[in-house]
Formats: sequence, C-alpha cells, structure tokens
Amino acid sequence: MISKNKLKYIHSLELKKNRMAEQVFVAEGNKLVADMLPAYSCKWLLAKPCWMATQGDIKAEELIVAEEEDIRKASFLKSPQDVLAVFRYPDWKLEEANPKEELVLVLDGIQDPGNLGTIVRLADWFGIEHLVCSPDTADIFNPKSVQATMGALAHVKVHYTDLTDYIRQWKAAGVPVYGTFLDGDNLYERTLTRNGLLVMGNEGNGVRPEVAALADERLYIPNYPQERETAESLNVAIATAILCSEFRRRLL
Amino acid sequence: MISKNKLKYIHSLELKKNRMAEQVFVAEGNKLVADMLPAYSCKWLLAKPCWMATQGDIKAEELIVAEEEDIRKASFLKSPQDVLAVFRYPDWKLEEANPKEELVLVLDGIQDPGNLGTIVRLADWFGIEHLVCSPDTADIFNPKSVQATMGALAHVKVHYTDLTDYIRQWKAAGVPVYGTFLDGDNLYERTLTRNGLLVMGNEGNGVRPEVAALADERLYIPNYPQERETAESLNVAIATAILCSEFRRRLL
Repeated sequence: MISKNKLKYIHSLELKKNRMAEQVFVAEGNKLVADMLPAYSCKWLLAKPCWMATQGDIKAEELIVAEEEDIRKASFLKSPQDVLAVFRYPDWKLEEANPKEELVLVLDGIQDPGNLGTIVRLADWFGIEHLVCSPDTADIFNPKSVQATMGALAHVKVHYTDLTDYIRQWKAAGVPVYGTFLDGDNLYERTLTRNGLLVMGNEGNGVRPEVAALADERLYIPNYPQERETAESLNVAIATAILCSEFRRRLL
Repeated sequence: MISKNKLKYIHSLELKKNRMAEQVFVAEGNKLVADMLPAYSCKWLLAKPCWMATQGDIKAEELIVAEEEDIRKASFLKSPQDVLAVFRYPDWKLEEANPKEELVLVLDGIQDPGNLGTIVRLADWFGIEHLVCSPDTADIFNPKSVQATMGALAHVKVHYTDLTDYIRQWKAAGVPVYGTFLDGDNLYERTLTRNGLLVMGNEGNGVRPEVAALADERLYIPNYPQERETAESLNVAIATAILCSEFRRRLL
C-alpha cells in the first residue's frame, strides 16, 4: 500500500524542475528496474511480491510492497508492470569522457525524450559510454527517456554542457570532430577513427551553425538510389544508429 | 470555420475501425500535407490562408479555410501547424511488390505506431517501395504512424497479409529470405543481395517461430566490443535502419 503523499511525490517527478530539486527520477518495468538497481542508488522501490520473489537481496532505502492498484496509480506507463522505482541521480563526471581514446556522442538540441532514450540504448549496443549534450537537449531523466533506454542507462552516462566550448577544447587537442551534413562526404567511403566526437543535431534544424563550424569530418548517409530526389531525411536516432554501426564495422 | 460534425468525424478517425469504415485517414503539418497531396486523393483540407498561399492549385474535394482555433480543435498533435487533411485510402496492390527484383521489408507484429512510421521513413531513404506486414502489425493510417513517416507515405506502400503464406510463396520461387536473430551470422560478413525479403519482428518477442523458420539467411548486428555481455538489444526501427544501410552500402 502506498501513501497519497508518496503518489503525489512520484507524479511530481514528471517535471524536470522537481527532479532537479529532489535529485531523483522514476524508472519502471520488471526488466528495466532490475537492470538499473546495480548502477543507481534506490530511494523507493514499489513492487508486487511476485517481482520481489524473482530478485535476490534488493538494495533500496525503502521497499514498498504493492498491489496492482498501487502501481497503476503511481505509473507513467499505459501498461504498468510489477515494479516502479525512484532512483537517486548518479554522479557522472564529464572529465571521464575521453574522446582521445574513445568515440563520444555529442547531441545538439535533441528535443524528443524518446529519441534521446533510443540513442542511449543504441550507444550501449555499440559500446559508447559517454553522451555529451547541449543544455537544451531533452532531459535523460524524463520518464519517457528512461523507459526508451530499456536499461542502457545502467551503462551509458549522459552529460550536459556548452558544446562549443567542449568541442573546441578537444579539437585543439587533435581529436577528430565528425558531423552529418546533407553536403557531406559519403560515409561508407571515409576513413573513420575509433575515437573522436560524433555530433548529431536537432530533429528539425540539425546541428547549430556555431557547432557545425567546428566539425572537420563532414559525413553524409547516402540514400538509394542516389539519383532519386524524393527521400526526405532520417530520424535523428536512425541516423545516429547508421553512423555508429559504420564506425564499429570498421573495427570488427 | 469548421462545423462540429466535421470535428467529430475527424476525431473519430483516431480509431482504426472508423478509418476502415470510411476508408480515410488524417495527416497534419505544413510539409507533410504538401508532400502527401500529389499521392493521395484528398477529401477535406483544413488550412489557414497563410499555408494555402504557399501552395499552387490545391486538389481537394472540400477546401476549408481555417483559423488557428479550428486546427487546434481538429488536431491530434501537441503542436498543431497550419493544415490538417483527411485523405482517402490508396489502392495499393500487394502483387506490385516483386522481391525477385527488389528488396521488400516484411514486418511481423510491430506494435508501436511510431516505430512503424519511422520504418516507412527510412525505407523511403533506402529506396524500399514495399512493406508487407502481418495483420497484427500497427495500422499505418494511425495518426501517429502517419506523422512519423514525415511524408514518406507518398512513396512507400504498406500491405497487410498472412506472412507465412506470403513468404513461403516467394521462397518457393527462389527469393532469399533474410531475418535477424541473436544467434545469426555477422551481418557485415555475409553476402547480401539487392533483392529478397527482409523480415523484422515484434518489439518484445521478435519474429514469430513459424515465420522465423522460413528465414534462410540468419543475420546478426554485432555489438561492440563483442566480448561485452551488457548490451541488451536494439529498437526494431534502429535494427531495420542498420540492416537497410548495410544492404545498400554494398550497392554503392
């Protein structure tokens, strides 16, 4: 049984300002919460006994045994599962990302929380540990982003910072800066390194001009057949996936 | 100004049974509707004068000059734009898809309308004209699917049919049947043809066993680094994109 106050608190976490003030976020679902538990400190864990029975020792500051009705009331999902958790913010440090040694994804103004979560999920698949986002990119702790990561947030770290300063600093250190542009070079024919910054832009407007100006490796995902003029564009998560796949293919 | 009856009719089209009964669907947005107009017969077009002024001769059975308020009331979007259209169903024929000559995407039980729309959009990018879906796949005329196509529905045709019969027939004709499986072969190392059937499965459960049994080319998208066990899976639209990119790369 969950109290009204706790329900109100959980619902308040749909808003970024409340998450920021409390430094906590919500994750839901039997597999997702199980994946997240080893990586985050858990404030409340609300679960049906059937889910608890599938877990070993559950590390949470407060464990709340719930009925279906409790979870339904607390949930942000259309189809709530057997568990919902309130996790504390992690202590991610931007300095841990080292584009001299690894490929780091840079997101400039991604708006859709689902796109952001999907990008975190595919980053995990391709072994990319750090995402560096402009401050106006969607919040990774938005419930929709968290759900779309499908647990990849247990392995991928998401940072927010001013991109021009960040990119400039690494560029000065000799790190290659990749971006996608409609007038870029055929991705499949370019030399791709195992390290560097890969910049992806906003859904509607692409990469901001001041950020785009810093990219020295301008890539393009060829459409097919190439003479066709009809195809319009690709969703940003889709484009990111194709780029990451191509970067990693070269290493296998 | 739009009548209450028309508003009610438009809202009713959120449900598949009403779309099927009326054989019409809704599309919204300044660019999307402009892209769709040459490809579909338009029943009603509800638009602000500013949008109409950007178009040439608009072919619609009924043109309704709208104010912001009218479009807001009719819209399925959070941020309505300047135009909303009710289009008639197209007359797509499954026989037009010829996997002996072209790559045809086969979708087995994709549930999320947004995923389906995103797949149509990327199919357009990679010059795939036909999608063949199981009857339980999301409806392409769901407003969320239509919006996610970003206009690609003007070029890509989506069919619904029993997949085992469909695949069996083409397999008997010597057409290669590709699928993705966790125990499949490294995608990047396999021979890929310019034609055939590429089968993608449901978000949670993958391809149904009876459909999977028909795939003779079992592919796998390698994660990176490969010894890592953490990475979980890829969203179905993401996996489809990586496969299509790889099929097309071989032809460029």
